[in-house]
Amino acid sequence: MTTSLFTTDPRTGHRRDTGIVTTDAAGVIAVTAAAAAAFPAVRGSSRAWRAGLLRALADGLDRHRAALVEAAVAETGLTAARLDGEVSRSAFQFRLFADAVEEGGYVEAIIDNAGTTALGPAPDVRRMLVPIGPVAVFGASNFPFAFSVVGGDTASALAGGNPVVVKAHSSHLVTSQRSFAALAEAAEQYGAPAGLVGIVYGQQAGALLVADPRIAAVGFTGSLSTGRILQDIIAARETPIPFFGELSSVNPLIITPGAVRERTATIAAGLFGSVTGSAGQLCTKPGIALVPAGEAGDALVDAIVALAEASTPQTLLNERIHEAFGDIRSRLMEIGGARPLVVSRTGGDGFSRSADVLEIDAAAFSPAAAEEAFGPLVVIVRYESVSDVRAVLAAIPHSLTATIHSAPAEGVLRRELTDTVRDVAGRIVYDGFPTGVRVSWAMHHGGPWPATNTQHTSVGVTAIRRFLRPLAWQDAPADVLPEELRDGPATLPRRVDGTLVLATDA
Amino acid sequence: MTTSLFTTDPRTGHRRDTGIVTTDAAGVIAVTAAAAAAFPAVRGSSRAWRAGLLRALADGLDRHRAALVEAAVAETGLTAARLDGEVSRSAFQFRLFADAVEEGGYVEAIIDNAGTTALGPAPDVRRMLVPIGPVAVFGASNFPFAFSVVGGDTASALAGGNPVVVKAHSSHLVTSQRSFAALAEAAEQYGAPAGLVGIVYGQQAGALLVADPRIAAVGFTGSLSTGRILQDIIAARETPIPFFGELSSVNPLIITPGAVRERTATIAAGLFGSVTGSAGQLCTKPGIALVPAGEAGDALVDAIVALAEASTPQTLLNERIHEAFGDIRSRLMEIGGARPLVVSRTGGDGFSRSADVLEIDAAAFSPAAAEEAFGPLVVIVRYESVSDVRAVLAAIPHSLTATIHSAPAEGVLRRELTDTVRDVAGRIVYDGFPTGVRVSWAMHHGGPWPATNTQHTSVGVTAIRRFLRPLAWQDAPADVLPEELRDGPATLPRRVDGTLVLATDA
Repeated sequence: MTTSLFTTDPRTGHRRDTGIVTTDAAGVIAVTAAAAAAFPAVRGSSRAWRAGLLRALADGLDRHRAALVEAAVAETGLTAARLDGEVSRSAFQFRLFADAVEEGGYVEAIIDNAGTTALGPAPDVRRMLVPIGPVAVFGASNFPFAFSVVGGDTASALAGGNPVVVKAHSSHLVTSQRSFAALAEAAEQYGAPAGLVGIVYGQQAGALLVADPRIAAVGFTGSLSTGRILQDIIAARETPIPFFGELSSVNPLIITPGAVRERTATIAAGLFGSVTGSAGQLCTKPGIALVPAGEAGDALVDAIVALAEASTPQTLLNERIHEAFGDIRSRLMEIGGARPLVVSRTGGDGFSRSADVLEIDAAAFSPAAAEEAFGPLVVIVRYESVSDVRAVLAAIPHSLTATIHSAPAEGVLRRELTDTVRDVAGRIVYDGFPTGVRVSWAMHHGGPWPATNTQHTSVGVTAIRRFLRPLAWQDAPADVLPEELRDGPATLPRRVDGTLVLATDA
Repeated sequence: MTTSLFTTDPRTGHRRDTGIVTTDAAGVIAVTAAAAAAFPAVRGSSRAWRAGLLRALADGLDRHRAALVEAAVAETGLTAARLDGEVSRSAFQFRLFADAVEEGGYVEAIIDNAGTTALGPAPDVRRMLVPIGPVAVFGASNFPFAFSVVGGDTASALAGGNPVVVKAHSSHLVTSQRSFAALAEAAEQYGAPAGLVGIVYGQQAGALLVADPRIAAVGFTGSLSTGRILQDIIAARETPIPFFGELSSVNPLIITPGAVRERTATIAAGLFGSVTGSAGQLCTKPGIALVPAGEAGDALVDAIVALAEASTPQTLLNERIHEAFGDIRSRLMEIGGARPLVVSRTGGDGFSRSADVLEIDAAAFSPAAAEEAFGPLVVIVRYESVSDVRAVLAAIPHSLTATIHSAPAEGVLRRELTDTVRDVAGRIVYDGFPTGVRVSWAMHHGGPWPATNTQHTSVGVTAIRRFLRPLAWQDAPADVLPEELRDGPATLPRRVDGTLVLATDA
């Protein structure tokens, strides 16, 4: 049985029927079966073919850009400019991954020729990473493109040679449907097998998807609580599968005494912009700022307060986020020792909030003050010493990022802080802000639990590794080897008998 | 409270007090705290220092070789020659990993310089893999050296820059103690921080170790049931950690019509040797052999039967394995359609068994016939067609390996079988046997669930990846960057702005 799904304009709270219905059990099976049927052809395709596919998908996004942005504006409350940039980012990502697939290093090809070793005669062994199988992707509320149907999980799964089935996020259903249509159309025009991309709608369909035996891995960006539910479904499967969850992050930002003196206004403006960009609904929002006690720190705090007081309410993504943010900000305000400096206002009929600024002394800081508030709120922690900073960091859940603002002359302190934050984060940002994650080869968007649950990234080229598994061939005749592992000139970098060898035509 | 631990000579069943006692809760904390205290120094060490450490550990093994082999002969029932080879293998592994650490490719260094991209200005991002933290290693019964205190998990964790705490396997306690002493002595002489390597004894200590908040990852080789217990302990931790389990494998081996005609005697001898080597107690033992129906297949089966009938009982590792093997072989004999061709004999006072050979037609094959029997037993499945082979493979749990014996002219069939087995195994062996796992750069020892529970290997250089996590630095001043990520000539291969660049002095 299917039920109709509604979408809400977060600016007005107005609900409307999307015409989309929930995917029932038979529907989920149909989609995963199609993905499984497409798998042999996709994994058997050449790297050049897959690179072309990814570029065709990018072109498809560009073609449908206007309709995509229009749908997302209505469903997310984000601005058209931000959403247009996000479509560009998604298209850029497909194209970057196409370059990576063409280059081929991501398969980690290794050839050990047969020979005599210190342990005696040894066989020929050749290894590379191969596609894992159909991947389930869960769209995120806060990135209707870059972390949803056309986002990083989809791009990395497809780049790796896997079909994808997306669970559309309930708060941007029409956007998801249009995104899927753009992908499916481009894939079909390129000649990709039917079933390469699929989509399901509704919470129950998402649960069935994760439990489906045809699904080989799951990519998820969302809350810790939903992540735990999906992890439990996986644990109950006959065959457990990898679950890549990007779950939670408060992203501490530390400002040294030198930095606060030298760059008061710049840091205040940058920090406030990073806290309130996209209404503070970013996984990398710096939720906790450590500011030195004393006059220079006071000036920085005053500048942030002034910016917050002058700011107007921004629309939050949906009712659930709006309510949860309201609850969490209230809890934070009531923590012992907390000083609310700016109390947010709501505005209009929809789901909106202006910025909250909360101050607390390091001595009063506790894990309760480190709850992630998914909205425009910053907790400013005033510290006296590096040991204060260490104590505060120890009370904060591990994060995707940690940021250090220091003065050029503070080398010793900078190294000390770097040594402290490297254990609690996956990316360390210097003299900048953690939001605005670069999509590139080196980017790491992941971190120690509970930031993510694995030793992998969900942004950047190395995100492809999540959807691959190693396979080795021993004493294999050339006729069964993939092109990447055959003797002779190679179109990709390989390690041969321990030595890294660049592509022949590099 | 501690209790005394006993060791048993499996040749005689004679128990003796080892003088070793169980590690109590305070003892486990002391060992993990020492590991955690050692971590900053180890991860801060240079690759050259760590390569030197690994070579010193290899030398330590060589120095104590006689005492190590002597202890293992008494505790495992394996031959001195086999055990001496295993010490060599462990030492070789430390030295190979030293080479890999020196070469540096395993840290996957990537530099994206700041610049203007299609999405606008982008920051400088540099990423590499860094050590994960103290690693718990569970020794395996069947490899007292290569998969125990001085084995692959220990070598890969240390190579990655992590301290190690080993849980000694209960069936080779003295061997474990002597192995640990050899490592600890070599580490101390090299100048490594105390706490770099630790050991705990007893089942309860193992559970406490996995639950300990200072432990950052677990490496395990053993049974699926114990693996599940450890995974449950991890799931109950406040901070879940990666669990790398090598759990179960039946390793199907397929012999084509051409191969069985052309190489009857060679295959019979090789297969029988692979099934009965180390008394069949190897993770990669080919437990199921698919042999064509008909005369040529009959001849192969007759040859295997003759070898099995002529063989004498071999000592199994311990009482538990001996009993479990007895139970499982009895169950297999009673499966509908099973034809016991050779029924094993026991011998002497200890835990011994000669070979069992069991035949069944593909049409009668069911998952019950695919139970892993950890001992000298092979199930021969007689098949009529490739679709028979597919049906049998579908009823077998996924494995570490799959093996294909074919004739040179059978290219089409070989490719068809390769396509079939690639989904069910981590390594495909051609015209050889899966036991005797080469320790090299390309080796993959892992497979789809339940062979292992992750997309990683526990043998070969890429095993190091399990104990690393990515870390990115954004717009970092040179003074906080690791040497591997600084501008200028590099001692390791790196990807710079998307292009792989070899080490400057390569």
